[in-house]
Amino acid sequence: MVDLISPSDAEVALNPLLDPEDSTQLPDPSVLVIFGASGDLTARKLIPALWHLHVNGLLSDRFAMVGVARTHLDDIEFRNKMRDAVREFGGGTDPDGMMWEAFAERLHYQPLAYDDDTAYSSLKGRIGDLDRKFGTNGNVLYYVATPPTLYTVILSKLGGAGLAKTQTGFSRVVIEKPFGRDRKSATELNRHAVEVFGEDNVYRIDHYLGKETVQNILVFRFANGIFEPIWNREYIDHVQITAAETVGVEARAGYYDQSGCLRDMFQNHMLQLLCYVAMEPPTSLKAESVRNEKVKVLEAIKPFSPEEAGKQTVRAQYGEGAVAGSEVQGYKDEAGVGNDSSTETYAALRLEVDTWRFAGVPFYIRSGKRMAKRDTEISIQFKAVPHLMFPQGHEDQIKPNVLTMRIQPDEGITLSLEAKVPGPTMHVRPVQMDFDYGTTFGQRSADAYERLLLDAFAGDQMLFARGDWVETSWGIIDPILEAWNDTSGPLPVYNSGSWGPEEAEEFIAQDGREWRRL
Amino acid sequence: MVDLISPSDAEVALNPLLDPEDSTQLPDPSVLVIFGASGDLTARKLIPALWHLHVNGLLSDRFAMVGVARTHLDDIEFRNKMRDAVREFGGGTDPDGMMWEAFAERLHYQPLAYDDDTAYSSLKGRIGDLDRKFGTNGNVLYYVATPPTLYTVILSKLGGAGLAKTQTGFSRVVIEKPFGRDRKSATELNRHAVEVFGEDNVYRIDHYLGKETVQNILVFRFANGIFEPIWNREYIDHVQITAAETVGVEARAGYYDQSGCLRDMFQNHMLQLLCYVAMEPPTSLKAESVRNEKVKVLEAIKPFSPEEAGKQTVRAQYGEGAVAGSEVQGYKDEAGVGNDSSTETYAALRLEVDTWRFAGVPFYIRSGKRMAKRDTEISIQFKAVPHLMFPQGHEDQIKPNVLTMRIQPDEGITLSLEAKVPGPTMHVRPVQMDFDYGTTFGQRSADAYERLLLDAFAGDQMLFARGDWVETSWGIIDPILEAWNDTSGPLPVYNSGSWGPEEAEEFIAQDGREWRRL
Repeated sequence: MVDLISPSDAEVALNPLLDPEDSTQLPDPSVLVIFGASGDLTARKLIPALWHLHVNGLLSDRFAMVGVARTHLDDIEFRNKMRDAVREFGGGTDPDGMMWEAFAERLHYQPLAYDDDTAYSSLKGRIGDLDRKFGTNGNVLYYVATPPTLYTVILSKLGGAGLAKTQTGFSRVVIEKPFGRDRKSATELNRHAVEVFGEDNVYRIDHYLGKETVQNILVFRFANGIFEPIWNREYIDHVQITAAETVGVEARAGYYDQSGCLRDMFQNHMLQLLCYVAMEPPTSLKAESVRNEKVKVLEAIKPFSPEEAGKQTVRAQYGEGAVAGSEVQGYKDEAGVGNDSSTETYAALRLEVDTWRFAGVPFYIRSGKRMAKRDTEISIQFKAVPHLMFPQGHEDQIKPNVLTMRIQPDEGITLSLEAKVPGPTMHVRPVQMDFDYGTTFGQRSADAYERLLLDAFAGDQMLFARGDWVETSWGIIDPILEAWNDTSGPLPVYNSGSWGPEEAEEFIAQDGREWRRL
Repeated sequence: MVDLISPSDAEVALNPLLDPEDSTQLPDPSVLVIFGASGDLTARKLIPALWHLHVNGLLSDRFAMVGVARTHLDDIEFRNKMRDAVREFGGGTDPDGMMWEAFAERLHYQPLAYDDDTAYSSLKGRIGDLDRKFGTNGNVLYYVATPPTLYTVILSKLGGAGLAKTQTGFSRVVIEKPFGRDRKSATELNRHAVEVFGEDNVYRIDHYLGKETVQNILVFRFANGIFEPIWNREYIDHVQITAAETVGVEARAGYYDQSGCLRDMFQNHMLQLLCYVAMEPPTSLKAESVRNEKVKVLEAIKPFSPEEAGKQTVRAQYGEGAVAGSEVQGYKDEAGVGNDSSTETYAALRLEVDTWRFAGVPFYIRSGKRMAKRDTEISIQFKAVPHLMFPQGHEDQIKPNVLTMRIQPDEGITLSLEAKVPGPTMHVRPVQMDFDYGTTFGQRSADAYERLLLDAFAGDQMLFARGDWVETSWGIIDPILEAWNDTSGPLPVYNSGSWGPEEAEEFIAQDGREWRRL
């Protein structure tokens, strides 16, 4: 029996969103309003992501976009700038010909002073025009990609101008990171955003959640029967989560020196990864099911007292050194960083998740700039076998199993296990079983922003942080920041191109463990 | 602190048997007496294995070998024949120069009529001569590689001539397969062998046990902490063990037509593999610890009643067909096979192991000649996940995990698991994690006979079948043979180059399962 209304297999192959049995709905028609459209994120990430969605037939054909920012540009100038951006950051399909024209005619620009009420009235008119022209059913998605100091005013003005709640369609807002700089400011921002849009319409972005490899953690855990039985304190000795960057502070010193590694990486990305590792199976992939489980994990992490924070954390700043053969300067010598800066560019935490599943299993989490290698991974270190029946020669110290989920750049999964070395003796040594995304699927992983934009259009909040998650995560971060603020004296310094400070080695060595060498 | 008496690391690298912490002892000095020295096994396996041991420095420097058989040859003729054999079957090192000379001067030959008492007296003299010349401390290892009808007479004559129990050294006997053709004959042979040599000196060979990949099953299970927790009826749906050959009966029709697939493959190899999968962890790798556990497994397999045997087994005979592009004849047309032969060349069993660990988990075991592909593997089919939170589109029927231990020829381990297909939707499909012996170790796996000879020299019986194991395994095979004997009518026929008869597909389909396509 063939349902003649359904898309054909060929159509589905071309555009998987047409698949009626699919998890993702078709993206709704909508106007996308990007605040901060003259900025870096728009050029590097958002427009290239929209372009890829367009090329892959994943944008609604009733879609329009309007960029707003203080800069004065007209539509044509904006489109040209965006074409340059796609050329530079689009990684592949050339923005030319009919494909580009069909995309470009959806791009618009409107100058806007963020605190000017009349500008919002004009924006309202513009959105109305685009809605009529493109038939977007009154749906509007706002994307706030400005410096964070502007978030509140933009939200208020959108509310004041009646832009946040349309009569006919949806009004959603995507808010870029950082979402606050401590629990208090995050709560304040939440209050604003929720007041204006309602929690169901607030999409707090964490681009890590859009990464294929991060999405795959749930698939790995819950679409496979053999890992869940050993995914607990009986079998796991500890977990290591590493996000190592080789870059320094680059052009972001202004922001970064006020923020530091803990705010920049831990409150969001690192704790999100931890949640995916530690969470219980949700009942479904509905956004609230998954987000409930993630909040439960954070709630199970007891915030440190100031004394504990000193013992359970390490921070450091990069000094000069060499990365990939090039000499680089130390953090304090970077343009925009003061000589007396005590901002950490490296942090390591030891967290415990007090659940039946993970009580007593330490999570060692570290992230740093100017490290030896760019590498983000989650490593599950299993316990040693309970009884060893194999001879332990000097060559074969039997190692516990390690499961490594490689998030970036070398996407994949590795399981280290012990095998017999071929030969007439019973020698045993670790070998690796490997799964590699690139080799297996032979196609580019979509950029995280593509997936996240698509989900925002479709109204799926699963891959966005919920308000209570953000506040709870700041609740874990705040006491550490406070303890650090109360400590005087210079920060430990690590050489650029190293694996962090000596203190971090001693930190984990106290527990009789060591950091993975990546 | 350096122990100056110990071998250096370089010496150990050259000869791992020198490793004082090693599991394998140094091979004792000894005289090896091969019965059936003019036969196929000696030329194809035993002499090449000894040659490799010699080349790798793993033979005692006080070693001598004497081949006996009815054929008349002198030492020189025998050495030349063996050099040809090494050239043809040695796979590598050329048997020439000083290396060969040093080996060849250890090889001797003595014609012997197997039932002639005086010949055994002469043999005794010869062994004495070699013992004095090579300083083998009175140690003798007999290797019985004759047709099985001669086993009993050889054992009796060895006993009668006082050759089985020497005054000073050891007297061990390696007995080739087949060890009996039913429980009764195996028990009889055991009685003989044990009476003459004592169980501790009887080495019943099963060359599968010497294979690297088979030895690695124990390492995989017991040197890794993460598999044992899921290695039971909670998580395993069923197990498939396959030994597929592409060859037909070849020159072995005389033996094979009297034996058939069940005797040839199941009583020994297939049940050994099953034991490694199903056994409890032994307390150590001492021979008796491991062999006790293996016998426990066989004892937990309830032998079939004749009625059950009909339902729980399939047998068939190959017809004509094509293997690797060449047309081949059917079994009944093979030279040496009668037109009315009802010998099975394919068999499939469904066994259950009634232990706390595996009760209710079916083991589907199949083996056949003239199959589509040469492949021996053990495949652990895990259960489906208890709850599926992922959308089930037409593309992604989530498959249970499968762990495959590839025994030969493509040695390795594969774990199939579900992963997210890159892209904007939550599609899931099976991918593979792989470990490959060749790629990982980059060296040839020693032939099983090398390891087994070495263990026999060293007095380690772990990789040899114990008497009670052999008798118990025949106890499982006998009722099937009887049930088959009682059935009249022609056997099902499968095309050469296929995966066996249609009946085998129906057989497993009854349980709602299917054979793996290899």
